[in-house]
Amino acid sequence: MACEVKLAAFTPDAARVAASAARLCYSASRASDLFDGLDSEKTGEFLLKLRKIGHLSPFEHAVFTFAIDGLSRVASHQLVRHRLASFSQQSQRYVTMGAQRVVTPPSVAAIPEAAAIFEEQANAAHAAYQRLAELGVPKEDARFILPHGWETSLMLTMNARELHHFFSLRLCRRAQWEIRFLATKMLALVRSCALELFDSSGPPCLTDGTCHEEHGCGRPYANIDELLLDQL
Amino acid sequence: MACEVKLAAFTPDAARVAASAARLCYSASRASDLFDGLDSEKTGEFLLKLRKIGHLSPFEHAVFTFAIDGLSRVASHQLVRHRLASFSQQSQRYVTMGAQRVVTPPSVAAIPEAAAIFEEQANAAHAAYQRLAELGVPKEDARFILPHGWETSLMLTMNARELHHFFSLRLCRRAQWEIRFLATKMLALVRSCALELFDSSGPPCLTDGTCHEEHGCGRPYANIDELLLDQL
Amino acid sequence: MACEVKLAAFTPDAARVAASAARLCYSASRASDLFDGLDSEKTGEFLLKLRKIGHLSPFEHAVFTFAIDGLSRVASHQLVRHRLASFSQQSQRYVTMGAQRVVTPPSVAAIPEAAAIFEEQANAAHAAYQRLAELGVPKEDARFILPHGWETSLMLTMNARELHHFFSLRLCRRAQWEIRFLATKMLALVRSCALELFDSSGPPCLTDGTCHEEHGCGRPYANIDELLLDQL
Amino acid sequence: MACEVKLAAFTPDAARVAASAARLCYSASRASDLFDGLDSEKTGEFLLKLRKIGHLSPFEHAVFTFAIDGLSRVASHQLVRHRLASFSQQSQRYVTMGAQRVVTPPSVAAIPEAAAIFEEQANAAHAAYQRLAELGVPKEDARFILPHGWETSLMLTMNARELHHFFSLRLCRRAQWEIRFLATKMLALVRSCALELFDSSGPPCLTDGTCHEEHGCGRPYANIDELLLDQL
Repeated sequence: MACEVKLAAFTPDAARVAASAARLCYSASRASDLFDGLDSEKTGEFLLKLRKIGHLSPFEHAVFTFAIDGLSRVASHQLVRHRLASFSQQSQRYVTMGAQRVVTPPSVAAIPEAAAIFEEQANAAHAAYQRLAELGVPKEDARFILPHGWETSLMLTMNARELHHFFSLRLCRRAQWEIRFLATKMLALVRSCALELFDSSGPPCLTDGTCHEEHGCGRPYANIDELLLDQL
Repeated sequence: MACEVKLAAFTPDAARVAASAARLCYSASRASDLFDGLDSEKTGEFLLKLRKIGHLSPFEHAVFTFAIDGLSRVASHQLVRHRLASFSQQSQRYVTMGAQRVVTPPSVAAIPEAAAIFEEQANAAHAAYQRLAELGVPKEDARFILPHGWETSLMLTMNARELHHFFSLRLCRRAQWEIRFLATKMLALVRSCALELFDSSGPPCLTDGTCHEEHGCGRPYANIDELLLDQL
Repeated sequence: MACEVKLAAFTPDAARVAASAARLCYSASRASDLFDGLDSEKTGEFLLKLRKIGHLSPFEHAVFTFAIDGLSRVASHQLVRHRLASFSQQSQRYVTMGAQRVVTPPSVAAIPEAAAIFEEQANAAHAAYQRLAELGVPKEDARFILPHGWETSLMLTMNARELHHFFSLRLCRRAQWEIRFLATKMLALVRSCALELFDSSGPPCLTDGTCHEEHGCGRPYANIDELLLDQL
Repeated sequence: MACEVKLAAFTPDAARVAASAARLCYSASRASDLFDGLDSEKTGEFLLKLRKIGHLSPFEHAVFTFAIDGLSRVASHQLVRHRLASFSQQSQRYVTMGAQRVVTPPSVAAIPEAAAIFEEQANAAHAAYQRLAELGVPKEDARFILPHGWETSLMLTMNARELHHFFSLRLCRRAQWEIRFLATKMLALVRSCALELFDSSGPPCLTDGTCHEEHGCGRPYANIDELLLDQL
């Protein structure tokens, strides 16, 4: 039911790259010497300070690529609205949808009657898709009848600055559940390889103690572990 | 069946703004004097030369906003992949889909049996959506069962440089039919208000006499009128 | 001494365009009907609410083009770091720098001895530029000896979302004085033609009552008039 | 005299990451399985074909970070105009310019009298900078008198798609000599670690056998080795 996410690639030593880029702005050193003397502790402290004062551009040098499977096209349509990122997505113009692959939302799965209607309808849609193809309709047109919840696969590259922005929007309890689940997995992955860059990240309730939602949920996150455990 | 497009706003005197920006790069004049002496003919010639030599940045100062209705989410998912643009799109999280609104592809409409299957399935999907809502499923989750061809509305802002790029990709005969139809309408609209900027625009067969497609169609466009008449 | 700024073009009825784009996201109306019933008061209230909840993308449909003269290349180098904008700048490769045109910083002008040194050195630099040209050095290389404070002209296009971001950074009392002066002029100009879009704009002390500077100035702006009067 | 460039970081296995992203678009495989069976030869062939047909987005997943020292601010002002890139640059607001560091253009160095004038003027400018500082002028204002050819250091991150675009513009014989030299060094570096991605890259004369310059140089590059040897 839920999407799978893996790290396909990332900038080696990403936190140190970002920290040395930031150092360059304030230092008479040469760009090629900036790695010298940057241990993990100094790096972490320095990056924390940068985020606090809003000096975010050095975070752009740290880049992460994710392989994502089983995400609905509902969620991917939202995801590709993030313009400061790179996407390669499976094409329904060229790839035949051979079996029913629709993401079932938890709210549907939780109601047996709803789940049955949903499943039946998803199967009927796929049968119609196949029937249209048999009648000579190109698959790029037959797909118009497939449910919007159909699964897709994609590769996504985002830098650490945009990831922080992405997490601030998409890890809010008010975000759509599927992109929020995706964001949680992504955050766990980048923390596993570059913790200094993502020591703190998430919605404003967590990072700033504030909330900008029109109708807030009233349940601010106390810390990042609560946020991660909430979903994973 | 087909989307509707209107110009919601555009830079007044757009061609002259772009031409005077280009002039600034090569001139000792002040930025605020550059409009002087730029008549329509000079503007057109100058813009043509700029495109020929690939000096495209001045075209960015001319900006166009389109109101689009009746576009499928299949097409809008492609459309929002153009990152150098601004989008505001109707949300299926917040807006109830009150009646069946699915775009029927021409290839489906052309085969009576296919059209009947498509229509029946679209109606069944909408009925399931309504039934799920009655069972307490939030509309943001019920929409997972709606067909991907469901209609959407959006506002799109793009500058003339990106529009030329958009037209070069999306007006090719190999482009998906719906986004190609949208692009044709957009080109006709911008030509109606800023012809000097879009005197020539479209796929490489039209603008450069070349083709980069892996499997070309073998039917290059002879001129822009042929391209416009092909769809409108 | 100080740069001159004019509005060269802007989206007509800009505030209403942005407001109707935002409305589209939450409404079952068609994109082409959204202007209906949006008077100035409703528009202003709606836009204020959008900024408060951080729904900023509709502001991208409102676009402004500025003609700027007499800005130093020190400031233009900073300015072009704003990547979500379009620039056309006078080229020192192609345009001969015929007379000494260096921006004198107020801190220099305030000290007679400093002003005399600055003026003399600027003149000597221009004389060297001319002498190099006479010796056969191309002007694109002779300019290496011209002061970094040399004047430039440019055209700049930015949408209202990025303008708000620009103003939040560049109207802080800690910003470099020249880009801050430029930003103040730009804010005054956009307020003159689209007040509802820029009812409130500026550094965080003014808009949110907060400060992110490492070494704050301790003099938060009380209101936007104080900010505008501070410079103009 | 000439800038120094090092690779500070890059996507490991960059060519294979780009190739597998492209594969995903046309394949029913899962995103997480796409590396399987992609050897170096297949990767190279596939990437070549992608460039030929203009499917460039997969190249965005391969990212490169450069540490650059000794570049003039003339060149860095041009460089930062490439908006699809990330920059961290040494600040003249915060860093004191302790010694004369001006890039001397080759055309100046080649004429002894010009070189003498240039050197003398650069020294005088730095002396004025120091004198202004002694008189109490902040260094952010004193720098207005420093030559535009002053050296800077920066870190630059660009993906392979934008690098190809950068190389197509900046490796032309008509490009400004310093940014052309920088681009040549960057191309040599990325070829050393991801040759399959940059098998062919450079101005249109080299990659397409065409030229878009208004006043072409009449000396098209025959191959990439000629281009690299021309500068390094």
